[in-house]
Amino acid sequence: MPETTDKLVIAGREFNSRLMVGTGKYADYPQMVAALEASGAEIITVAVRRVNISDRNKESLLDHIDLKKYTLLPNTAGCYTADDAIRTCRLAREAGLSDFVKLEVLGDEQTLFPDNQELLKAAEVLVKDGFTVLPYTSDDPIICKRLEDLGCAAVMPLGAPIGSGLGIRNPYNIRIILDTVKVPVIVDAGVGTASDAAIAMELGCHGVLMNTGIAGAQDPIAMAEAMNLAVRAGRLAYRAGRIPMKLHASASSPITGLIK
Amino acid sequence: MPETTDKLVIAGREFNSRLMVGTGKYADYPQMVAALEASGAEIITVAVRRVNISDRNKESLLDHIDLKKYTLLPNTAGCYTADDAIRTCRLAREAGLSDFVKLEVLGDEQTLFPDNQELLKAAEVLVKDGFTVLPYTSDDPIICKRLEDLGCAAVMPLGAPIGSGLGIRNPYNIRIILDTVKVPVIVDAGVGTASDAAIAMELGCHGVLMNTGIAGAQDPIAMAEAMNLAVRAGRLAYRAGRIPMKLHASASSPITGLIK
Amino acid sequence: MPETTDKLVIAGREFNSRLMVGTGKYADYPQMVAALEASGAEIITVAVRRVNISDRNKESLLDHIDLKKYTLLPNTAGCYTADDAIRTCRLAREAGLSDFVKLEVLGDEQTLFPDNQELLKAAEVLVKDGFTVLPYTSDDPIICKRLEDLGCAAVMPLGAPIGSGLGIRNPYNIRIILDTVKVPVIVDAGVGTASDAAIAMELGCHGVLMNTGIAGAQDPIAMAEAMNLAVRAGRLAYRAGRIPMKLHASASSPITGLIK
Amino acid sequence: MPETTDKLVIAGREFNSRLMVGTGKYADYPQMVAALEASGAEIITVAVRRVNISDRNKESLLDHIDLKKYTLLPNTAGCYTADDAIRTCRLAREAGLSDFVKLEVLGDEQTLFPDNQELLKAAEVLVKDGFTVLPYTSDDPIICKRLEDLGCAAVMPLGAPIGSGLGIRNPYNIRIILDTVKVPVIVDAGVGTASDAAIAMELGCHGVLMNTGIAGAQDPIAMAEAMNLAVRAGRLAYRAGRIPMKLHASASSPITGLIK
Repeated sequence: MPETTDKLVIAGREFNSRLMVGTGKYADYPQMVAALEASGAEIITVAVRRVNISDRNKESLLDHIDLKKYTLLPNTAGCYTADDAIRTCRLAREAGLSDFVKLEVLGDEQTLFPDNQELLKAAEVLVKDGFTVLPYTSDDPIICKRLEDLGCAAVMPLGAPIGSGLGIRNPYNIRIILDTVKVPVIVDAGVGTASDAAIAMELGCHGVLMNTGIAGAQDPIAMAEAMNLAVRAGRLAYRAGRIPMKLHASASSPITGLIK
Repeated sequence: MPETTDKLVIAGREFNSRLMVGTGKYADYPQMVAALEASGAEIITVAVRRVNISDRNKESLLDHIDLKKYTLLPNTAGCYTADDAIRTCRLAREAGLSDFVKLEVLGDEQTLFPDNQELLKAAEVLVKDGFTVLPYTSDDPIICKRLEDLGCAAVMPLGAPIGSGLGIRNPYNIRIILDTVKVPVIVDAGVGTASDAAIAMELGCHGVLMNTGIAGAQDPIAMAEAMNLAVRAGRLAYRAGRIPMKLHASASSPITGLIK
Repeated sequence: MPETTDKLVIAGREFNSRLMVGTGKYADYPQMVAALEASGAEIITVAVRRVNISDRNKESLLDHIDLKKYTLLPNTAGCYTADDAIRTCRLAREAGLSDFVKLEVLGDEQTLFPDNQELLKAAEVLVKDGFTVLPYTSDDPIICKRLEDLGCAAVMPLGAPIGSGLGIRNPYNIRIILDTVKVPVIVDAGVGTASDAAIAMELGCHGVLMNTGIAGAQDPIAMAEAMNLAVRAGRLAYRAGRIPMKLHASASSPITGLIK
Repeated sequence: MPETTDKLVIAGREFNSRLMVGTGKYADYPQMVAALEASGAEIITVAVRRVNISDRNKESLLDHIDLKKYTLLPNTAGCYTADDAIRTCRLAREAGLSDFVKLEVLGDEQTLFPDNQELLKAAEVLVKDGFTVLPYTSDDPIICKRLEDLGCAAVMPLGAPIGSGLGIRNPYNIRIILDTVKVPVIVDAGVGTASDAAIAMELGCHGVLMNTGIAGAQDPIAMAEAMNLAVRAGRLAYRAGRIPMKLHASASSPITGLIK
């Protein structure tokens, strides 16, 4: 199967790119637009709070995004309760944004870890309400299974805390999540550099979502291109079937366990 | 500086691609040719032992490589002494192959680690003899400095043993080597998958050389393309300036040291 | 503060040893008794399900444990719902075992990950019911904070899945948990060898609980002694204040971030 | 085999402790003496340069070390050539110190990496000269084999650069060295905290040598005790036979390769 026919499918919608990017923290809109372009992303997430929904005559983030080109994924960044997140999603839908939503319910202003109890409550209501829900969650296989059972269209476990740049801190949990759920697994948060994105894909994840890793780089546009290439590289490598790890070429068997 | 003007320069020769690939272990020549093409490599290394130097009428590896397109880098794979390696390089030059050589002197048939004592002897003779010498060596900063002092055009420390697929096992040493020598540092050996290649480039290395990682993959052509993208991704990310690593986004300072 | 006065304090009770051990998976009772002794542990956890509570005339695990010497910590292993775990704790208390309990509510028979939603429900009821609750949970700072807020006497995040032997897979999360809660943090599950236990203590954890790592070793009694020494070594090293990590001795500043 | 009969044997001499410690960098002699005592070490290494060999009437490091209790291992710290190291060893022997020597020939003042070419030259001369030679070297299996072939009584590969505190940066190479040589393998340099020492022993090394990790800690005496316990813990765990690593307890097979 060539790269061009290897689609990401979420809730029946097909995408060529497996990289999803955010729209925050850029120096200005032209920089953001150029970075989105360089990333090759087709799905762009925007914080509903940052869109002037009530007064669309004022300048808005959305004025700068070509909505014919990108699929908008409104998110509930800044929500700390299920109620707040549900209200935010409904507001976004009423304003005509989308019913395809990235659901975030944060538990802590400092670490920005998800509050999975509130997340599950919000996901249940929103799925029943007809939303296509992509929840940002912990790398916890049990929570991911619950989210799938509630009808979420994908699960988005964190690789590391939002904005940390630490990469996939627990690939073992991501591997178990991949063994546990059938919906797409999108690593969301923690990617700091290109190899982190490649590693997520090599693990077998279906996509990667990032914002700070690109927007916070010294040259966000170059980093966006790096991430574009890295996600494709990691996906190709996953599909190509890597060589086994061995202590050296003439070792008779693959390495068993980590060597410490 | 856009990607197109970011050249690899070795001994005054400029290359667009930072990925160098080997020619061994492929199922057949057409597969090799397709993988070379997909890798985007400009420098191709061939074991002098595998070229029918003495009888160029017989079929040879070289019949399958477009010598207008690729720069040939003959290597001394299979040599275990300085004398043998020196003889092999001279043979290659006499046969018109090239005076641009990858110098390997192995210390052990099992692990294929370099014998750095013999390597230094061979490098000294070959440099004086007018060869452009690229030595495969350990990730040892002192040896790398000696090789540079002898006049080698680059140093090629291993990431991990040949054929192991273990990636860059000691990025700390690679970092110290980058601080120590002025010639290009090319990671040679150990790359198992795309992220390994990206990591080498993110460390600041100037290039990556690999063979088994591509030729031994289940789909060598797809893996060659993955490596092509990964090397470019890693280089771009290195140049783009990644975000610092922090325990979480609101941590006041970058992480100091590994967390164990 | 010498080692002898560095006590572990849980809910006002003082312990000299920071190692807690389980009682399952031994070849026979004499082996278990010898391993408990070698471990130096003062707190011993037993699955309520394995004690013949209803008929104390039959042979029971408890017949082999010197209850004057060890503090018993009954656990709810094998419970998959809050109700089941609550019932089990009450049964244990009625049978005179203890009101000091290790609360486990599992989410999955395969991976033995905790079900944190059910755990929170059970913890709330049991704390109100007068139990001293030590919950086995994920390495999720938000859940750990909720458990503390509910009145749990400690939190016991997993280092890795039960029985995996993978060590502390995400020391970053453990570090954040240590920054987040004030109750003792006991790493529970995942320890495979001595250095894993030392690492948990060096991170600043207050204790470690393990079972398979000892009982499943080829020589459980020797491994129990190894864990005894390792927990003490790790705690001492944490208190002694280790040297900073640097690329080499004359590097002017500590390493910032992981090197990849 | 109980811990008490598990001896370290070097050149026919038996030792109960597998921890060797240095004598530099302490605040004062009483602190050094207390740390040596707490470490449980039987072999103490001293830089010949720091002993007033020429004028034994002046105060000397040796005045503070109980030579009935400890085996002295003079070292050639500060030597950058084979000649210098050979001269230093002979001086030590003439002064009656010992013919049991730790051979260091450094390649670089900054990183303190060994110069393996000079090391091999010095080792050859000193072995012929009747010294029992323990060489500090790189984690390079080929060099370690050469040193064994020359007649060295042990090999002492670095875990990481001297004074770096980075632990065992390349356990894969240490494992290969253990497969390659028959003499004892002592990890020398790089240990920063207790778990590093435990890991060295769990790999199967025969001993650990350290100085900065203890002397540079905030409380060197507590850290010396931590290292004492950690080396014993790691050795016991190695001999006890740890459980295999698995993704989770019910995984049917051990983990193959690193998960990235």
